[in-house]
Amino acid sequence: MTVASPWQASVLTLFPEMFPGPLGQSLAGKALREGRWALEAIDIRGFATDRHRSVDDTPCGGGAGMVLRPDVVDAACAAALAAGPDRPLVVLTPRGRPLDQAMVRGFAAAPGVVLLCGRFEGIDQRVIEARAMTEVSIGDYVLSGGEPAALVLLDACVRLLPGVMGAAESGEEESFSSGLLEYPHYTRPTVWNDRAVPPVLLSGHHAEIARWRRAQAEAITRERRPELWARYAAANPIAASRAPLAGHPDAA
Amino acid sequence: MTVASPWQASVLTLFPEMFPGPLGQSLAGKALREGRWALEAIDIRGFATDRHRSVDDTPCGGGAGMVLRPDVVDAACAAALAAGPDRPLVVLTPRGRPLDQAMVRGFAAAPGVVLLCGRFEGIDQRVIEARAMTEVSIGDYVLSGGEPAALVLLDACVRLLPGVMGAAESGEEESFSSGLLEYPHYTRPTVWNDRAVPPVLLSGHHAEIARWRRAQAEAITRERRPELWARYAAANPIAASRAPLAGHPDAA
Repeated sequence: MTVASPWQASVLTLFPEMFPGPLGQSLAGKALREGRWALEAIDIRGFATDRHRSVDDTPCGGGAGMVLRPDVVDAACAAALAAGPDRPLVVLTPRGRPLDQAMVRGFAAAPGVVLLCGRFEGIDQRVIEARAMTEVSIGDYVLSGGEPAALVLLDACVRLLPGVMGAAESGEEESFSSGLLEYPHYTRPTVWNDRAVPPVLLSGHHAEIARWRRAQAEAITRERRPELWARYAAANPIAASRAPLAGHPDAA
Repeated sequence: MTVASPWQASVLTLFPEMFPGPLGQSLAGKALREGRWALEAIDIRGFATDRHRSVDDTPCGGGAGMVLRPDVVDAACAAALAAGPDRPLVVLTPRGRPLDQAMVRGFAAAPGVVLLCGRFEGIDQRVIEARAMTEVSIGDYVLSGGEPAALVLLDACVRLLPGVMGAAESGEEESFSSGLLEYPHYTRPTVWNDRAVPPVLLSGHHAEIARWRRAQAEAITRERRPELWARYAAANPIAASRAPLAGHPDAA
């Protein structure tokens, strides 16, 4: 199978051998082999200009670690963008805007992405500004480099590309899109270690089941993620006005 | 080199070949080879009990996708915990508590972790409750499975293990610990494409440099992450009362 114009991911990294890594397996790996997306890992070291192939230098003003040079990073960006100039240039950094599903949808809808990974050190701020990079953070924790974050961003994007997910999985996306955490899942056996599946799920009453799941999703969101709940409640005043578990005492 | 009692990571997954993946390279890979941590990927499919080796079934109440069976997951958890029972049992799910650096430090300080990865489908809620699993989310986006999230969590933990980071890198951790986003980094050349390194960083005045960096970190946090800023300001009333960029008009 070939796809006319696959989604094109380029990763600028000091560790190109980390790619495709887990993205060569399972859903993303199948899509890669089917040509639904393409991945190139570009070694930043290839753009060093001195004979030591150095890509970083000590930070101006002193301090720990090393900083990637703006000229080297800029040359690597230019090379990546030459092969697909209409793609967003993203740098993965804890200083960035927190990644969310709306941003993932945006990246998946683009012709592809160019991802810049720092490693240990920072990246000279001037090249981030000169290239107007989109600074993205996958969460409030510190990684050894941008590579695991790039793998996460790519995994999230690839599953949304046309033809990658079957109809079976795509329903889940809708669930997350509601702005709520997901309701709990249950399967066979219906009684396991004295724990029964909630009876409503075995009732066959589709409307009741949908109501129960919605109430569960609202309750868990309200309990665990007050800031998500506030946003949801503002957009859904009727839902917010009802007691989250009314009529479902077993779900408290 | 051998370490008496390495930090022990077990990953329960349907795709054990995804591990160590990127964790076999660079900082984490070196630490793995040095025996500072150990990683085993346990195939959940090995705990299926029927001759089709099925691990999942359709969701009770209907709907898309498949759900991992509680009995199969429970048996896999038991096997993992037998090799190190004092480790937290973590399930990676968008329903979980958002991972932050304090949680990472907690996991790194434990004897290790057992990570359960779902894939496409959900996991039967009863086994999550019966095993009192810690539900952790790495961010508000949907992945094809828990594996990329497990790689992220492990990378964040491993860099904090004793002996893994040199003194050079450990300063960065302190910076994040302040509750602020990081200040911008600069290195040679001091003028690049008509863009100069901020003069204060070349002044040699350590106290001035520290002040400038703090002001930059405060300004970027205030601008990009109001919720982090509010927490920081509550804990640092003096910092919050000064104009974030006073004396540094070039940094606006």
